[in-house]
This record gives sequence, C-alpha cells and structure tokens, in this order.
Amino acid sequence: MRTFRLVIACPDRVGIVAKVSNFLASHNGWITEASHHSDNLSGWFFMRHEIRADTLPFDLDGFREAFTPIAEAFSMDWRITDSAQKKRVVLMASRESHCLADLLHRWHSDELDCDIACVISNHQDLRSMVEWHDIPYYHVPVDPKDKEPAFAEVSRLVGHHQADVVVLARYMQILPPQLCREYAHQVINIHHSFLPSFVGAKPYHQASLRGVKLIGATCHYVTEELDAGPIIEQDVVRVSHRDSIENMVRFGRDVEKMVLARGLRAHLEDRVLVHDNKTVVFD
Amino acid sequence: MRTFRLVIACPDRVGIVAKVSNFLASHNGWITEASHHSDNLSGWFFMRHEIRADTLPFDLDGFREAFTPIAEAFSMDWRITDSAQKKRVVLMASRESHCLADLLHRWHSDELDCDIACVISNHQDLRSMVEWHDIPYYHVPVDPKDKEPAFAEVSRLVGHHQADVVVLARYMQILPPQLCREYAHQVINIHHSFLPSFVGAKPYHQASLRGVKLIGATCHYVTEELDAGPIIEQDVVRVSHRDSIENMVRFGRDVEKMVLARGLRAHLEDRVLVHDNKTVVFD
Amino acid sequence: MRTFRLVIACPDRVGIVAKVSNFLASHNGWITEASHHSDNLSGWFFMRHEIRADTLPFDLDGFREAFTPIAEAFSMDWRITDSAQKKRVVLMASRESHCLADLLHRWHSDELDCDIACVISNHQDLRSMVEWHDIPYYHVPVDPKDKEPAFAEVSRLVGHHQADVVVLARYMQILPPQLCREYAHQVINIHHSFLPSFVGAKPYHQASLRGVKLIGATCHYVTEELDAGPIIEQDVVRVSHRDSIENMVRFGRDVEKMVLARGLRAHLEDRVLVHDNKTVVFD
Amino acid sequence: MRTFRLVIACPDRVGIVAKVSNFLASHNGWITEASHHSDNLSGWFFMRHEIRADTLPFDLDGFREAFTPIAEAFSMDWRITDSAQKKRVVLMASRESHCLADLLHRWHSDELDCDIACVISNHQDLRSMVEWHDIPYYHVPVDPKDKEPAFAEVSRLVGHHQADVVVLARYMQILPPQLCREYAHQVINIHHSFLPSFVGAKPYHQASLRGVKLIGATCHYVTEELDAGPIIEQDVVRVSHRDSIENMVRFGRDVEKMVLARGLRAHLEDRVLVHDNKTVVFD
Repeated sequence: MRTFRLVIACPDRVGIVAKVSNFLASHNGWITEASHHSDNLSGWFFMRHEIRADTLPFDLDGFREAFTPIAEAFSMDWRITDSAQKKRVVLMASRESHCLADLLHRWHSDELDCDIACVISNHQDLRSMVEWHDIPYYHVPVDPKDKEPAFAEVSRLVGHHQADVVVLARYMQILPPQLCREYAHQVINIHHSFLPSFVGAKPYHQASLRGVKLIGATCHYVTEELDAGPIIEQDVVRVSHRDSIENMVRFGRDVEKMVLARGLRAHLEDRVLVHDNKTVVFD
Repeated sequence: MRTFRLVIACPDRVGIVAKVSNFLASHNGWITEASHHSDNLSGWFFMRHEIRADTLPFDLDGFREAFTPIAEAFSMDWRITDSAQKKRVVLMASRESHCLADLLHRWHSDELDCDIACVISNHQDLRSMVEWHDIPYYHVPVDPKDKEPAFAEVSRLVGHHQADVVVLARYMQILPPQLCREYAHQVINIHHSFLPSFVGAKPYHQASLRGVKLIGATCHYVTEELDAGPIIEQDVVRVSHRDSIENMVRFGRDVEKMVLARGLRAHLEDRVLVHDNKTVVFD
Repeated sequence: MRTFRLVIACPDRVGIVAKVSNFLASHNGWITEASHHSDNLSGWFFMRHEIRADTLPFDLDGFREAFTPIAEAFSMDWRITDSAQKKRVVLMASRESHCLADLLHRWHSDELDCDIACVISNHQDLRSMVEWHDIPYYHVPVDPKDKEPAFAEVSRLVGHHQADVVVLARYMQILPPQLCREYAHQVINIHHSFLPSFVGAKPYHQASLRGVKLIGATCHYVTEELDAGPIIEQDVVRVSHRDSIENMVRFGRDVEKMVLARGLRAHLEDRVLVHDNKTVVFD
Repeated sequence: MRTFRLVIACPDRVGIVAKVSNFLASHNGWITEASHHSDNLSGWFFMRHEIRADTLPFDLDGFREAFTPIAEAFSMDWRITDSAQKKRVVLMASRESHCLADLLHRWHSDELDCDIACVISNHQDLRSMVEWHDIPYYHVPVDPKDKEPAFAEVSRLVGHHQADVVVLARYMQILPPQLCREYAHQVINIHHSFLPSFVGAKPYHQASLRGVKLIGATCHYVTEELDAGPIIEQDVVRVSHRDSIENMVRFGRDVEKMVLARGLRAHLEDRVLVHDNKTVVFD
C-alpha cells in the first residue's frame, strides 16, 4: 500500500496534534500509523504519520504547499515522503562480506525497500558477489599515504549516483570531515562494539582484554567525531571465558548485520529523527 | 504530575484522531503521551492519551459529560481515569513468596502506583511478610473436597475491599468461572511457562521433559478457560542440559516476578486494551 | 588446528573421567576442550573432548582400536571424529531463500566447517543463487497426489552424495517416516515457532491469533512425529500488537536463520548428543 | 547434597585432568560437576569439580594433605571448600533498597546459600527491613570531610563478623584502597552501567545524554581502580527515546538486582576464578 510519510520535529506546545490531525482529516487522509513523542528534557515534540496516498487529494508538491502554513506557524522541521519513491543507497565495504551479503540478500528478497545504486570498495574481494546481483561495483583503493584522491572519487561516485543514503557496511576507512558534513544524517555506519565502549580500532580485542560478558554492535549516523554520532540501534550477545577473540568476532558478525539491517530499515522508512546528537526511532 | 488517561477502542475510520485531538486542544489540554494503533485484521482503532490534569477545565465527571457526544458518534468503548485515584489491588498467593515479595517491595518503594487493599492466601506462610508492610492478611484455606465456601469468602473479601484489580501472585488455585466473569479483565495471573506451551500444572516439569532451550513466564488476564486469557506480557530465559528442574524453577522465579510486575504496571497505568482475546499494550 | 573429537554417552558411575583422562594422558594427548554432564534424571553421563591430533600417536582407526576396551568396560555409546574430515551436508529448500542464503554465505566465508554436497529443492527459484556458489542444484518436484517418487529420488540423491547431514532449510515438505528412520539424528529442521507451541502449518498465524508477545524458532532433529524431535537450539524475538503477521514473518526469518546456523554448527562440531528425545549441547 | 568443591588454576600442560581425575577416582570420589577451561592467550588452565562429600574418605584437612603433592607438582593455585560450610556475607547499602531487599529475600527463601552476618549502611533508612530478617544493622555514617573514621569502623565490623564476602549492594561510597587490597576478590560491587561504558557517577544520566538504546549493569570485584575490577556478570535491557532518566533508573534497578544476585551466587558456589583482571565463571 502506497503511503505518504509526514515527519515533524518542533518545539512542544498545545495544539500541534490537533492542528495536524485536523489538516489530515479535513482532506480525508486515512492514517495507518501515527507516532508522537514529547521530550521533556529538550522541550521538543516529534511526530510521524503514515497516510494512505490514495485517500489524499495531493501529490507531494501539493501536500507541501497546503501544509506549509501550519509548518511555519509551529516552526516545524518537517518532511513529507512518498513510499513509492525508493531511496537510493550506496553501499561501501572493505574485505569482510557479512554485512554486505546480508543487505544484498534482504534487498534481493524485497525486504529492504530501496534501490541499491552501487557498491564502492577499497578492495576487489566482493566484486563477484555484488555483480551477481546486477549492481555496479567500483574499486576505489585508498592509498594510506594520500587518501585524498580516493575520497574525491568516492564523493564523485556518491554524487553521480544521487545517493540518498550511504551505508558503511564494515568499510574500514574513516570518511573525511567534509564528506561527513555534506551528508549529515545520511551516512550510516555499523561499529562492532556496544558504544560508547571500545571506540576505534579492534573493539573485540579491547572487549576480550576487559573481560566483558556481553559484546555488541552499534548502528549510528557518521559525524566528524569518530564513533560519536547519533545512535540508531544497538544490540548485544552473551560471551564467556570460553570465547576466544575469534569466537567474539564470529558472534559479533551476526549482531553487526542484524543491527545494521534494523537501523537501515528504520532510516529507509523515515522512522528516525535526529535531535541533539540523539535519535527518536518510531517503531 | 497528575494526568487524566483517556483510553479508547472503536471501529476504525477517518477523523477519529482529529476529533479527539481537537476536543483536547479546544480545552487547552496538554498531551504528555499519545499512542494509536490501527488493527488491520479486526478493523478496530485503539488510542490512549495522557493529558496534564491541571491544563483541563474538567474533573472526571465534567470530562465524561463533555466527551460523551464524540464517544457516541464514533461508537467508542472508552474510559477516562485520573492518575491521582490509585487503583485498589487485592493480592492472592499460596506458599511461594517470590512474586508477592517482589510486588510488595515495588509498592513499598513507590514503584507501583496503587493501594494494596489486602492479601488473601490459602496458607499462613506469608502472613508475617505481609503484615510487616501494614497490609491486612486473610487466611482463606481451600478444602479440596469443597472449594465453594472458600471462593465465596474470597469473593466477599474482594468485594468488601472494593478491588479494582485482583492479582494471582502464584496463587495455586483455579478461580471459579463466576468470579472470572464478574471481574473480567480485572484478574491478572502469572503462569510459569511461555504460553501456549505447557498449559496447566507443573510446566517446568513439562519443559524439562520436552528438552526446551528457553523457559518463560506469561502474565495474562484470567478467563474461564484455563491459561487461555489475553496475554499482557511474556519473557523467557535460556536454560541448558545442565539445568535440573530445580534450576529451571529458580530461574523461572526471576522471570515470573519480572513479567508479573511489568504486566501489572501496564494495567495500573491503563496501558492495556483487550479486544478479541488479545491485548494492545501501549508502552 | 586439527583435533580429534571424542564423544561419549554411558551410564554414570565412578571412574569414567579418570579412565578416559588417563588413557589420553598416557598417550600424551593434549586436551583443548573438555565437557562433562551427569544427568541425574536418567543416570547417564555425557562427555566430549577435543584433543590435538598431532599430540596423539594414532589415526582414527588406531584410536578406535586402543580405546575399545575402555568403551566396552563402561558400556559406552561413543564416537571419535577428525576435524580434518569435513562432514558432507545436503541442503533442502523450497522457495524461501533466507535460511539457504544464510547457510551458503557462512559456508562461503569459511564459517561453517563442512562440504556442501548439493542442494535439493522442490522448486527452481533458488537455482541461480546456489549455482553461483558452484554447488549442484537438483530440482525434485513433489506431486501432492503421489509424493513417493519424489522422496525416492531425494533418498537416492542423499545416498549418492554420501550425506552425513541433511538440513531442511525451510523445506516445506514432510519427510516420509522411512527416511526419518534411516537418517536418525542426521536430519536437522528449522521450525518457525518456539516449540512445542504452534506445531505444524502457519505458526505465525497461530501466534498472531493467540496474541503472544514473543515469537521464536526451533532447530531440531527430525523424527517420525511432526515437530516433536530432540531440540538442538531455540530463540525468540519480541513482537507487539503493532506487528502484523507479515512483520512477524519478517522478524521470524532472522531468528530462524540464526537458530538454524547455531544448531547446524553445533552438530558439525560434534557438540550435540541425543538421549531420550533430548539433547546435550556442549558449547 | 553435601559436596566438596575443588577449584584449580595452573599453567596448562598435558596430564592435569588425568592426575586430578585419577586422584578422585582412586579415593572413590563421585564427581557431580566438572568444568575445565584452557585459556590460549594466557596459557593457563582452570578447573572446578564438585564431588559428593559422602563418597570421599576425607574431611577438608585430610583432602588438603592428600592433594598437596599433586598441587605442588603442577604449581596450582587451588582451594577445596565444603558446601556445608556457608560463607559469611556482609552486605553494605546506602538508601536505595532494591538490591538489598532482593538479596535478603533470596536468602530468606533459601535461594542464596550463605549466612548474612550483618548489614552496614551509612544511612538509617533500611534498618527496619533488615531487622525484620533478624540480621544486625550497623549505621556507620560517612563524614564527607573525613571518611577515615567511618572506614576504620567498617573494617572493624567486617573483621569482627569474620566476613568471607562483602557485597556493595548499591553502597554509594568508594572503599579506601587498603580495604580493597585486604579483601581482594572478596568484595563484590554492582555498578549501574554496562562497563566499561559510563564509569563513575550518574551512569543513567550519562547513558541518556549519549542516547544509547540499551542500558545495563555490571557485577565485578572491587579493586583500587574505580569500576575497573574483574567482571563477574553483566546484563542489559532495551530502552528507547520514550524513556526518561527516571524510567532508565527504574528499568536499571531490575537489571542491577538480577546481575548482582547471579554474580554473588556464582561467587558463593566457588564458580568464579580470577586471572589477569578477568574471570572464568563456570556455570
């Protein structure tokens, strides 16, 4: 069923829900999902509606025009999207295949509602897997002594493919600050630890050294500060003294791919709102 | 903060949210929580609002009078409650103390927002624990050959204490049908299995015999059919071949008390709506 | 590191561990993993050792000959396997790809230590995915009016490929009793519910109807009685009133593939012992 | 059933299990539980046996005398304990009751196999709850300007009551280094975060600020470095944007008390071995 998704964040006050609901009802909009959140700490209000597109007399532009007066009156950050317009995703990976293979399979079996524009990798290892899915594969090696040309090419490819979202599916390079800024809240990373524990390199080694009893993974938006962006989703799995670092890496792979898939899916369905380096995720 | 809780179930159609939101906004009601659910299978719509009581010009009766025309227009099952009017709870237990002790401690430390009217038990074992909390304790032994007098007394006590809710905190007797009907959706039980597995007696023995790898507990409303009422909350815990039945019972106790406490809390906060032997639980 | 795996089940009595440990130590065997379990209910003892193959003076036959007197003295059911001899796996699937794709990827990335001999399916849908992995794909359609020829062919293929294990990766047909008997404790199924709840067809529909708050999956050995064989692994995931049956199916897929992969891995590493329709799983 | 518990850590080499098993078998010892662990990173071997006391010809001293030659030959750190000799526990708490009430109830219902020697608190709030259990309560206020006299008194009380274990059940003071050293691996703390995240004060505030999607608790041995001692047990619970800090604190309480109870139980049953600031926990 085709829906419009209306996503709003604004300072909280009386009457927002009434105004928005009235607007939708007055145009005969059939709401299939509605989620609200008042954040007491920040004083902000967050709201997401899904409305059956066939019950509204608008296309997206018509909706925008009709809704703008309300949005302005309440100082809203807002957007309206159409479930029929699939987001364009660029996947980036290095050598490890588990997250990439998982996302490709979900896309292939119509579980992820998006177009995968291309895969960019600093290695050749995953080319055959990607090309079997009829997806373009770009090999952009990164010279550790001069990374700038590689990221210029990455930036060009992302722009060329008109990406709405970039997913770092265990891409083991740090994006340059300018790219992080240009695609703020559009670059999704999977970090292989339960952040904020074990920022940076080799988190499973850090976890083994500290002797933790659970290991985890964190899906977050990329910001200029390493592994410090807004968290979308996290999960953990139990380990014990019996588990070598190799075992932790293996268990971790399963958590990583699940957490990344859940985070990406929420993003694709416009369920994630960012405010003050934190997320509201309407499930 | 004192709130009014408006809880609604009705056949789904366009305009419900708008009508209700408008009503609240037109009386300047400050909504602190709003939850909606459209159930596609049944075609019903469910809704719960918390509104700051001090922003409304009504007491409960005033609210009821003002809201009734809307409720009638949409054929609503509905109720409005006041967070300042604590629900009266009657606890029932047998010999095992873990669920009772857990609920008493939560109440004692102001985590459960209710009045505990009394405890009724078919044994004397838990009297001292209950009386330390200054709660009346009634010993109502059940004669296995003639249970009727006991349940007549239970019924009298529940009525006398004007119970809003009866909690079977591992009360090992089956309530008679008439009591189930009289207090429909007001009697909460904790069953020590992950229903619908292992209905009836000795579920941990059944679980051990079947060799399951997880055991669980289920909090549900009591209906005439044993262990078949609407499920409010469930959870599980991992077991292995190493775990004897005694261990399962011990692990199970922790799940039971957590699941019962979560289920009761949801009920006390008017978060649970029942429809077609299933629940909507707005968290 | 190449290891021998010594797996033993026998009636419990004093001295078993001493006798076995002595045997291994007297031949200078370096034990890398040892697991024991005394089952009080059945009075049986279970034991698994991994021993570095390069520290023993035997090949498998030599080990068998040397160990047999001890095995006979204690009436042991036992086996010794060599981690260097990969088990041969036949995968069976229908149309749904999630379990098959997951197992193929784990095998492809060296996470599952086995040879995949072939895939047998009653449909053509998954041929391309399988053949990309250079694995033979057999299409054996099942005529609902006469299933016997199909299962004769399945039986022939399993025999021809010298399968050690058959995995029903969402193969939506019921195997005939004779095949279940012939490959007792060698056929692994994934059932898409938390058994013993929701045996048989359409478990997610059953779950939705009952209003459970968790759904699950069960990996078990196939026996003649449907969905009643020894359970190897189970897990669950939380659902709520918000989740349609379609959502349950989607969440369930992730649980199914994880549970099947964990169960199969345990089997491949000779970690699963069956006794009285229950399993001991040494992790 | 009364058992002896033999707990061993030593450098790994061939023949340890054989030697120990032989020793036990030669004295007709009936092993009810056996756990081994070879740690590849450190090259150490860990082992725990439970043996039915009535099958051995020794008391503890006799066992020690007979076993010492083996222990010396393998350079073992080892101990033998008798399940019939209950450990003496001193509980310390401040104002929050949830962990203390939970441990007291478990002890009261014979779930924790120990003697509770006394409770020490820097406040009077929990006196009545403790005294209902017939356990001595010592109020030792801590002067923030001069904590030394308080900890001298704490030290005296712990010594006077011959404590085997000290449990900081949300005792909101930092023990002085000398006390940490004197009772190394005998003082158990519950920290209200998933360590190493959110060390120190107000972890739930830190968690809310970072926007994590899971919060946790960590049971660990106290060392001189704050919140950095060997971890015994951890667990987490899911939170969302809907959860205020108050809700996190409330959910956290349930995780804290469960994790502390599991950690303490493992310690009381001699299941925890410490090596290199990490634990082996034989479950």
